[in-house]
Amino acid sequence: MADYLNRAWTMASRPDGEPTPANFAIAESAMPEPKHGELLIRTLYLSLDPYMRGRMRSGPSYAVVLEPGDVMTGEVVARVEKSESPLYKVGDTVLAKIGWQEWAAVGAHTVKPVDTELGPVSTGVGVLGMPGMTAYFGLLSVLKPRAGDTLVVSAASGAVGAVVGQIGKINGCFVIGVAGSDEKCRYIVDELGFNAAINYKTQNVSEELAQLSPTGVDCYFDNVGGSITDAVFDNLALKSRVAICGQISQYNAAEPQLGPRNLSVLTRMRGTVEGFLVYDFELQYEIARARIAGWIKDGRIKYKEDIVDGFENAPEAFIGLLTGKNFGKLLVKVSE
Amino acid sequence: MADYLNRAWTMASRPDGEPTPANFAIAESAMPEPKHGELLIRTLYLSLDPYMRGRMRSGPSYAVVLEPGDVMTGEVVARVEKSESPLYKVGDTVLAKIGWQEWAAVGAHTVKPVDTELGPVSTGVGVLGMPGMTAYFGLLSVLKPRAGDTLVVSAASGAVGAVVGQIGKINGCFVIGVAGSDEKCRYIVDELGFNAAINYKTQNVSEELAQLSPTGVDCYFDNVGGSITDAVFDNLALKSRVAICGQISQYNAAEPQLGPRNLSVLTRMRGTVEGFLVYDFELQYEIARARIAGWIKDGRIKYKEDIVDGFENAPEAFIGLLTGKNFGKLLVKVSE
Repeated sequence: MADYLNRAWTMASRPDGEPTPANFAIAESAMPEPKHGELLIRTLYLSLDPYMRGRMRSGPSYAVVLEPGDVMTGEVVARVEKSESPLYKVGDTVLAKIGWQEWAAVGAHTVKPVDTELGPVSTGVGVLGMPGMTAYFGLLSVLKPRAGDTLVVSAASGAVGAVVGQIGKINGCFVIGVAGSDEKCRYIVDELGFNAAINYKTQNVSEELAQLSPTGVDCYFDNVGGSITDAVFDNLALKSRVAICGQISQYNAAEPQLGPRNLSVLTRMRGTVEGFLVYDFELQYEIARARIAGWIKDGRIKYKEDIVDGFENAPEAFIGLLTGKNFGKLLVKVSE
Repeated sequence: MADYLNRAWTMASRPDGEPTPANFAIAESAMPEPKHGELLIRTLYLSLDPYMRGRMRSGPSYAVVLEPGDVMTGEVVARVEKSESPLYKVGDTVLAKIGWQEWAAVGAHTVKPVDTELGPVSTGVGVLGMPGMTAYFGLLSVLKPRAGDTLVVSAASGAVGAVVGQIGKINGCFVIGVAGSDEKCRYIVDELGFNAAINYKTQNVSEELAQLSPTGVDCYFDNVGGSITDAVFDNLALKSRVAICGQISQYNAAEPQLGPRNLSVLTRMRGTVEGFLVYDFELQYEIARARIAGWIKDGRIKYKEDIVDGFENAPEAFIGLLTGKNFGKLLVKVSE
C-alpha cells in the first residue's frame, strides 16, 4: 500500500456554461497517514449532487467556492482503515466531507458515524443522508403541507424529489411530480405512488397542472427553477407556499437567464416563497433519519440508486446529472 | 337638485400599455334616490391608487375586473346628504367604495364611518385609510422588522412608502428609501427622517445599497418590482424578508416583462418573499388606525397629500400616478 497513490478529482478549470471533461483533472498524491486523533478512511461511495455545480462558479455563494486545482467538493461514505482515535475503530462506516477522493486522513471529530442497521451504507449519502434530509425539512419545516393540499415537486424522480413526494403522500397530500421522461413519470406514479406526473419535455406543464388540480397548487418544492417554476407560479393557490431548494435549470447558465417578472401572483394569492438550506436543520437530522428509516421499513418510502462504477467515471456522471441523465440518486462506487 | 345629473368616470376601453385619456369617459345619470336603509352620499375626496390599474386588465385578479363601460373602481370619502337609515345622519362623513363617482345611493351597511377626531377627512383614504393600513400590516405583520434591521422601501415618498419608512424608524430600523427624484429623496430624509435615500433614476441602486448597508437588506417593502427589486435581491441579508405589496413598474406592461431569474439568492440567504393584501387584515384596522393617529399627534408620522382639484381631472392625475408624477398621497377633491 505504500506504493499506492491516492487519487482525487480536481476542478482543472472553471466551466463556462455546461461543464466538460476538460474542466476536471485527476491529481495523485502520496497515501495519507493519520496522525494522533485522525482516521485513515477509504471511500466506498461518492455522492454526486447538483449543489456541486454551484461550488464551481465564482461569485457569491453560501459556501467556499472552488479555485482551479482544488479537489471537487463532496461527501462520501467511507470505511475506517486505520484509527488513531478512540472514537472509531477499523471497519466502522462514516460520512466524510473529503470531496471527490479515494482516501483521506481526517480528524475523527470531522466525520459522522453511519448506522448500518438503518439501511445499506450507500443510503448514508442518499435517502438517509443529505438528500433525504433536504426532502424532509424542505417539505415539513418550510412548506408545512396539510392533508388535502396539492403538492408539486420538480425533478420528482431525483434523490430529493422522490422522497418529497412520498413524504407528501404520507402526509395526505395530492402529489404531482414533474420529471423529464415517460419512464421517470411512470416510476413515480406506479412505483412511488404519486397521484400524477407531468413530463415537462413533452407536455405543457401549466395546462397539465390546471387540469390536474383546478383548485391550484398549495405547495411547490422547487428543485429546478426556470420555465417549470413559471408554470407552477401560474397555478398557485391562495396562501400557497413555494420552497426554493435548488434551481438546477440555471446552474449551467454562464449569464443569468431571463424569465417573466411574475411576483405579482404572490400578492394576488398571498403566496410565500422561501429559500432554505438543509444544513440549517442539522440539529434535527437524527429524528428525521429515524423516521425515514421507519417509513422505508414499512414500505412507505422506496428509493432508487443510480450507481456508476469506478472513481474515474465521476466527471462524466456529474455532467449527466446536470442535464437529467441519471435516474435516481446518483452515486459513484469507488471501492467495495 | 332634481335637474342635476350625477357623473361617473367609466373605463371606456381597456388600455393597452400606458392608459391614455381616451380609455376613460364620463357617464351621466339621473341623481340617485336613497331607498329604505340607504344613504345618499356626496364624494368629498376620491382616492387614486395604483391598484386601480390592475382592475383595468383582463386576466386573473384578486378582485372583479372592469369591463368597458363600468365605473372605475375606487374608494371615496363622502358626506351623507340624505339618510334613510338609523345608522348615519345627514352630515356624517363616511368611507364608501362607490368608484369614481360624484354621488351615490348606498346601503348604510356598505360604508364605514370616518372618525373626524383622528385627522382631516382626507386622511380617511390616506395615512389613516387603505394606504396607511397597507404600510402598517405589510411592515409589522409580514416583514416583522427588529430594531437594527436595514429596511428598504421603494416608492418611498408615496402614500404607502412614506408610512412604511416612518413606522420602520419608530421600530428602530435603519431605513433606506428609493424614490424617483432628488426632491422626493430630500423629502424622505429631511422631513420624514429616513436614514438615506436613493434616486433610482440617477443612481445605481444595487451599488448604493451595498454601500449604505454592507451587512445587507433585512427587510424590503416592495411597491414597484422590476429592476429596483432586482437590485435589492442582489443585496439581501441572511434570513431576509421581502413583502410584495405592489409591482407598479409592471402595471402598464402589455406583455409580462422579463427579468433575471434570481430565486437562487433566496436559497443562499434563506430569504422569504411574501405577497399580501391589506384587506386580509381588515379585522385589525381599528387598532392600526388608532396607533398611526397617535404617532401623527406625537409628530412621529408626517404625511403629504397631492390634491388635484376637480372631478374632471381624475384620469389625467391617475395616468401621472402610474409614472410617479405625484408627490405624496394622490387625491381628487370632488366637492367641499
